[in-house]
Amino acid sequence: MKKAVILLSGGLDSATTLAIAKKDSYACHALSFNYGQRHFRELESAKKVAISLGVVEHLVLTLDLGLIGGSALTANIPVPKGRTSEEIGSGIPVTYVPARNTIFLAHALGWAEVLGADDLFFGANVYDYSGYPDCRREYVDAFERMASLATKAGVEGQSHFKVHTPLIQMTKAEIIRQGNALGVDFGLTWSCYEATTEGNPCGRCDSCLLRKKGFAEAGLKDPLLQVD
Amino acid sequence: MKKAVILLSGGLDSATTLAIAKKDSYACHALSFNYGQRHFRELESAKKVAISLGVVEHLVLTLDLGLIGGSALTANIPVPKGRTSEEIGSGIPVTYVPARNTIFLAHALGWAEVLGADDLFFGANVYDYSGYPDCRREYVDAFERMASLATKAGVEGQSHFKVHTPLIQMTKAEIIRQGNALGVDFGLTWSCYEATTEGNPCGRCDSCLLRKKGFAEAGLKDPLLQVD
Repeated sequence: MKKAVILLSGGLDSATTLAIAKKDSYACHALSFNYGQRHFRELESAKKVAISLGVVEHLVLTLDLGLIGGSALTANIPVPKGRTSEEIGSGIPVTYVPARNTIFLAHALGWAEVLGADDLFFGANVYDYSGYPDCRREYVDAFERMASLATKAGVEGQSHFKVHTPLIQMTKAEIIRQGNALGVDFGLTWSCYEATTEGNPCGRCDSCLLRKKGFAEAGLKDPLLQVD
Repeated sequence: MKKAVILLSGGLDSATTLAIAKKDSYACHALSFNYGQRHFRELESAKKVAISLGVVEHLVLTLDLGLIGGSALTANIPVPKGRTSEEIGSGIPVTYVPARNTIFLAHALGWAEVLGADDLFFGANVYDYSGYPDCRREYVDAFERMASLATKAGVEGQSHFKVHTPLIQMTKAEIIRQGNALGVDFGLTWSCYEATTEGNPCGRCDSCLLRKKGFAEAGLKDPLLQVD
């Protein structure tokens, strides 16, 4: 079996991405980060999702992004609430974390090199969050080109690193349908940006609103209760 | 004054790079990593160098690269000793840390974005360690291209990130002469890969041998004693 490193946040996009990698017969090595995110509760979800989808290994690394700050997820900046779809879709939101996905992918690349894996899976998608620059294929292509020059395995021709982004052109509803078809238990996932360690998702942050809209459009019921 | 983020390991290359950024009138924000390196003693040197060269700020971030391993610097793999210049110059050594410089530069990029800085300084050089893939300008160019696509500041056109590598074509002797001319106190720096928390550098690892050769060729005396 070919090995793959899968970025796993604990949200529904990365859970679906992991299920796709599994369906494609990869031995899945899941990678999560405790990076100072206010919604660190997602890491408990990541662990449950990793187990439920039968990963070979799940590595959780700690990062100091809270010391860099600059985002509503890592600094004392309020998370937007109750925005309309148009507001969510326009511009880069304050929940953008500077260079976060590059930092995540760089770790995934290092781990892939050590494992002897060519394949990285990253659950980026351009719809809904059209604002995140590091969720576009153009960015991922540039990362891939850099990766082959950055590594011993790339330079010596042992590896041809590929960053798979199977969700990149899917809407949230399509992602939910795909995950559902592949047996993802969305009750294990966590999307809410708020840092509640227990209780229900807030239901009003961008992430909750996109999730709610996605389930509604998919015609499915979210097993995770949300506050209305 | 324009702000710059400078990767500062505590070795003589990064100390000279910082001195060059200072000479070029940047407000210098130094960035170091406690990444699980066996020679974590270099961080004490980084702190001293940062102070002696008058940085605005020095951020030390912790990374979990020890959990990824795959290098003599982060895993239980012996550091090569007593190698000839030819041996050091041929092939990528076991002290290569998978994707390390990409992880470092990605953090520098995130911090630069938060600071509103366009300029990153990175003390890579292609001679001596011709083996490290992530010390070549070709790699740095690919990182730069990726950086502009990865970030809010890049996409919105507020920043044009540039990764300066002023040492890239210098020999170790040239770096030492340059640092000396700019007033770097090399007695504060640390190069040895061995994890001794006190005492002298081992004098036999690749890093000690390159330093020794560099000082000899520069016709200068290393203020740091080495075991012979």
